[in-house]
Amino acid sequence: MVVVPETIQRFFTTATPEAWVAEATRRLPELLLDHANCELKAASTALGFLYRYPDRPALAQRMSRLAREELRHFEQVRSIMQEMDIAFDRLSASRYAGELRAAVRDQEPYKLLDLLLVGALIEARSCERFARLAPQLPPRLGKFYAGLLASEARHFEHYIHFARSECAVDEAAIDARLDELKEIEASLIAEPDAQFRFHSGPPTGA
Amino acid sequence: MVVVPETIQRFFTTATPEAWVAEATRRLPELLLDHANCELKAASTALGFLYRYPDRPALAQRMSRLAREELRHFEQVRSIMQEMDIAFDRLSASRYAGELRAAVRDQEPYKLLDLLLVGALIEARSCERFARLAPQLPPRLGKFYAGLLASEARHFEHYIHFARSECAVDEAAIDARLDELKEIEASLIAEPDAQFRFHSGPPTGA
Repeated sequence: MVVVPETIQRFFTTATPEAWVAEATRRLPELLLDHANCELKAASTALGFLYRYPDRPALAQRMSRLAREELRHFEQVRSIMQEMDIAFDRLSASRYAGELRAAVRDQEPYKLLDLLLVGALIEARSCERFARLAPQLPPRLGKFYAGLLASEARHFEHYIHFARSECAVDEAAIDARLDELKEIEASLIAEPDAQFRFHSGPPTGA
Repeated sequence: MVVVPETIQRFFTTATPEAWVAEATRRLPELLLDHANCELKAASTALGFLYRYPDRPALAQRMSRLAREELRHFEQVRSIMQEMDIAFDRLSASRYAGELRAAVRDQEPYKLLDLLLVGALIEARSCERFARLAPQLPPRLGKFYAGLLASEARHFEHYIHFARSECAVDEAAIDARLDELKEIEASLIAEPDAQFRFHSGPPTGA
């Protein structure tokens, strides 16, 4: 059985709606295409920390490793797509990524804090969705998605760790900000979404 | 003994000047700092192919793996820098990278061809320099640099392979273009350079 790791379960108050899971199982080629794009973007996001905060050795080493792991997943999704004869193409940013990115504040140390917390939210949500999807998918794909769970959960923990260790912001303010971002994230997951994506809301009219 | 692989030896007509090697052994912290930057840029360059040419599966898979390997080297150089107490910072583009990039044509399929050939040249030159430097460095660093040789030689071969397989340009035109780019590269390696970098020319006044 595939279960959402307990850390992730405790982290979210809003679960992925059933209507999204049902839609995803009907739209596998689009799911995989967006998933491959997400892995590539996750790698680029991790590298962004190296470019923006070059003087933080612990952050740099971890983000470089994280980027490598996302790239390995990207290669794996593309292999599966090729076997299923699904062409790859670049997709524009989803509502989910766009709105979370828009919430990132401009001024340091809040910018770094928000970037890390948004990273944590995306990894945690990906983990939850992989767990929800895995039992509904064709066996090979289900097994692959179940295998990704553990790394997404680890990435989530790394992002939270750096949010607490790399930003000169006190614990209470970090907690308050995390709550605000969780609320935005929850609405993106719960509100009908015109576009189907890996991180979209339930389909309009469902 | 560390030797330049034969494929690389045959590829270049201009060897790294002794004056550059001597300078490099005197300026290890700057060498390492630029080397770390080069690994990060090499990873970003490889990812650039995924973004710019998303519909080429063989190229995408290879460039993703190549980016992972460059990132692993980045982490290794940064570890060595930390042990040696050398701070990391981002460096602006060197004369070498800037001028080679300026030579890339704007129109396809020549743009892809030039990007791949420039990639091949940079990997080949890195390989040659690692081989030249390794015997002159403190043992641990020398061993690390000797170990990088093989992967740079492999990357060089991958770039050449894709230049010949992914671009709708005939063999003779590819060879002619490679000769032109080699000539530019050779002058950047041979002509005095005001700035010391991993790929700079001999120091001014040497």
